[in-house]
Amino acid sequence: MPSRQQLIQQIKIKKSFLCVGLDTDIQKIPSFLLDHEDPVYEFNRQIIDATRDLCVSYKPNSAFYESRGVKGLQSLAKTWQYLPQECLNIIDAKRGDLGNTTDMYAKAFFDEASSGLSFDAITVAPYMGADSVTPYLSYDGKWVILLGLTSNSGSKDFQYLVTKGGYLYEEVVKKAATWAGDDRMMFVVGATKSTEFTNIRKYAPNHFLLVPGVGAQGGSLADVCQYGITKDCGLIVNASRSIIYASNGRDFAEAARAEAQSLQQQMQLELEKAGVI
Amino acid sequence: MPSRQQLIQQIKIKKSFLCVGLDTDIQKIPSFLLDHEDPVYEFNRQIIDATRDLCVSYKPNSAFYESRGVKGLQSLAKTWQYLPQECLNIIDAKRGDLGNTTDMYAKAFFDEASSGLSFDAITVAPYMGADSVTPYLSYDGKWVILLGLTSNSGSKDFQYLVTKGGYLYEEVVKKAATWAGDDRMMFVVGATKSTEFTNIRKYAPNHFLLVPGVGAQGGSLADVCQYGITKDCGLIVNASRSIIYASNGRDFAEAARAEAQSLQQQMQLELEKAGVI
Repeated sequence: MPSRQQLIQQIKIKKSFLCVGLDTDIQKIPSFLLDHEDPVYEFNRQIIDATRDLCVSYKPNSAFYESRGVKGLQSLAKTWQYLPQECLNIIDAKRGDLGNTTDMYAKAFFDEASSGLSFDAITVAPYMGADSVTPYLSYDGKWVILLGLTSNSGSKDFQYLVTKGGYLYEEVVKKAATWAGDDRMMFVVGATKSTEFTNIRKYAPNHFLLVPGVGAQGGSLADVCQYGITKDCGLIVNASRSIIYASNGRDFAEAARAEAQSLQQQMQLELEKAGVI
Repeated sequence: MPSRQQLIQQIKIKKSFLCVGLDTDIQKIPSFLLDHEDPVYEFNRQIIDATRDLCVSYKPNSAFYESRGVKGLQSLAKTWQYLPQECLNIIDAKRGDLGNTTDMYAKAFFDEASSGLSFDAITVAPYMGADSVTPYLSYDGKWVILLGLTSNSGSKDFQYLVTKGGYLYEEVVKKAATWAGDDRMMFVVGATKSTEFTNIRKYAPNHFLLVPGVGAQGGSLADVCQYGITKDCGLIVNASRSIIYASNGRDFAEAARAEAQSLQQQMQLELEKAGVI
């Protein structure tokens, strides 16, 4: 479970701030894997082996595992056990609930003895406020990654509503930054425009931002770095489908590696440009 | 899976608009149940047997089951199978994500063949907008219950932010009411003040509202009815802990029944007062 300093160190060692999103859909993985006892785990295992030196984080998307019920949860538990310890291992669950329920979600994702899972970080939805966040922080060293500005079409429905203190997403970042420091909290920011990063960096100048939407969702790494990178990097950029489904054949792991390597090489240039390495 | 008309009929037959929340915590159930192979399911089964003629809805809280990993999910699946078909069976999951991920959550909770679960309705968080909602609506007759105004302390952090069109929770209800009619969508409204119901009824005059916070959370049924009831009832009022943990002894199911009956009797008076029955 990397601390902030350990995460920055990993970024410098690997010259990468890549997160590989494990949105593993049994209907999209190469069909020859279906002979395995647990095809989803086998796919993830090979993806992890092929990319672990190129990324600093993995992010299984809980929905893809939940969709398969007990079998899916078993694949998720085996995948979690296989994740490299030096990486920031995020469960993308976007939970958000009142205090006593959040206690239970914390057990579900942070307490191996209770659930069989203990990720380093969880994505959280802000609508229900502070009690959706604070229970996770009682787990030493674990991280909360709160939704700030997302990259989906529906982000425009509410996140850009104008409030007294700016856009709703600014209010979320401003208030949440008072709940935990940059050593325990990050924000999901699916931004590509300079004004959006400027708005968010006003309130979270040093927080790491988890940036989705590069790759299959169409965002540009150069834009993200131009406006979002800090002296400590301050970014984790996620790519899911563009890496894990780079090929649907027997070379799927090699193809995933090639795609991850291409992103890592771009990231190295950005890290050099920003003086991080 | 009740339609709106069937739900209203159930309310008239049972003279009740009670939802029993199955927030079942293995650390809180009577200890003698721990000898059973699946204590959480056994507890739920007896609670359901003791209350099914008094309520129109059950609502397992997903977090409590997820906290126990695979075992918890097995208890949830068995509980779902045991839920009375005439009731509106809600999974309280508060998911909210982008389109392709919401497709997976829909499989997790609405598609028995995929996950072993097929609830009638799911609670959903609004922050990520329309694509958090619409994928569920492709399942014939299933319901989305969107968070409007919640009853927890953190509800004040963002839900009452003032926007151009009113409070954030008003904007959420106003916009979401355009995504689905009152036959497919409800709103979670943890309101006890007349102004809050008035604000919400402006945009959702006929939608059912799922009201938490009566019982252990301290809300008053009379206040809720005074401001929120409609000619079709338009309310489902949830009680969880006050019912299921009414006793910690061998009489836990009878005690739960007594508590549910007391609420049902109050509800009957409110239904008569409002001319619903």
